[in-house]
Amino acid sequence: MKIAVFGTGSVGQTLAIRLSGLSHSVTIGTRNVENALAREGKDAYGTPTVAEFVKNNPSITLKTYADAANGTDLIVLATKGDGAEAALAAAGNIDGKIVLDITNPLDFSKGFPPTLFLTNDTSLGEVLQAAFPNTHIVKSLNTMFNGLMVNPRSLGEDSTVFVGGNDAAAKARVIGILKEFGWKDSEILDLGDITTARGTEGMLPIWLRIFGATKNGFFNFKVATGK
Amino acid sequence: MKIAVFGTGSVGQTLAIRLSGLSHSVTIGTRNVENALAREGKDAYGTPTVAEFVKNNPSITLKTYADAANGTDLIVLATKGDGAEAALAAAGNIDGKIVLDITNPLDFSKGFPPTLFLTNDTSLGEVLQAAFPNTHIVKSLNTMFNGLMVNPRSLGEDSTVFVGGNDAAAKARVIGILKEFGWKDSEILDLGDITTARGTEGMLPIWLRIFGATKNGFFNFKVATGK
Repeated sequence: MKIAVFGTGSVGQTLAIRLSGLSHSVTIGTRNVENALAREGKDAYGTPTVAEFVKNNPSITLKTYADAANGTDLIVLATKGDGAEAALAAAGNIDGKIVLDITNPLDFSKGFPPTLFLTNDTSLGEVLQAAFPNTHIVKSLNTMFNGLMVNPRSLGEDSTVFVGGNDAAAKARVIGILKEFGWKDSEILDLGDITTARGTEGMLPIWLRIFGATKNGFFNFKVATGK
Repeated sequence: MKIAVFGTGSVGQTLAIRLSGLSHSVTIGTRNVENALAREGKDAYGTPTVAEFVKNNPSITLKTYADAANGTDLIVLATKGDGAEAALAAAGNIDGKIVLDITNPLDFSKGFPPTLFLTNDTSLGEVLQAAFPNTHIVKSLNTMFNGLMVNPRSLGEDSTVFVGGNDAAAKARVIGILKEFGWKDSEILDLGDITTARGTEGMLPIWLRIFGATKNGFFNFKVATGK
């Protein structure tokens, strides 16, 4: 499949590398290619710079959002939450495309842990769906560390990945990608429509508190039912 | 231990019965005893009326909040979220007491699923701690169905119960109660101070969405780490 990954941070890089390794044709999209390549310094997680990433992954091409999206039917949205809508707006005509939305509405302006800039009676997933009504927004994977998103078996026990979106066919396509990553059917929980993003985006505060208490981000939530 | 359970709904009844069965001396507190006994009809969960509850559980006495709290050092706060502060205010002098706060700030005024009337940069646990600064608020058990709170082994697999509060000794007392209920050490996660209630109260939206999708409230979250 031809897939565009939007976002050059750790989540975008992880998704792009894994999808490329699964033999998908992957482009990575950014606002301005020259600026992205010129960006220096690693982030707090030691993520390679964009220039290093491009050099290390010759099969993944870096393009503008619009050029990356062109000809694809799946966009993996892995930008910062406050850049998500602008990234899709810059992508040109995305009617009919599927957007696997991994973003979270995190507001770091008041320190750590961040709060949410949208929550409770709305969600970023819904805001994006409303802004792009002919695009199929599917919220998933936003409740865990990016290494686990693409390699769930690395955890060593079963856990849960949530899926939410209005279009059943789009969700089925995303679930297909999840299975390629290694998610079992029994681990994939379809919550319903895109309003369920209120639930999954709302897990970020507890995720951050667990991370704060345990100093370990290598965990995932499991919906334990005893079965 | 002498324990007062505040709240006569399904959560309060479940906690009171279980604590009484563990040989604690339990009173159940309500705003107005006569009004509570006169209340007719079961709720949506088929919870017994207060009169039936009192009749069926002769070892548990029904008293006003103040009379129930008198002489106890632990209050289990199991009222509705919007009645929690008023219940503690009606309890008289509760300085030095431990409050095991199971409440959630659920707002049902806009239909189902409810939203939260406090969230994100505050929590009900914090509001209560600020209103009663000499009382030790310990937030716990608020992230699951009440049957699992008091009988975690009934799930048939390990899951997680969170604890948050400012006073280490108070948390240790609450953890002692959790262990009496059957929680294993490995299932109990101390998140830190009372601000961590933002995380646990913030799990209600995803809890409600999972319940909505699966029609099954008999589940709990597990923090899966592969260990």
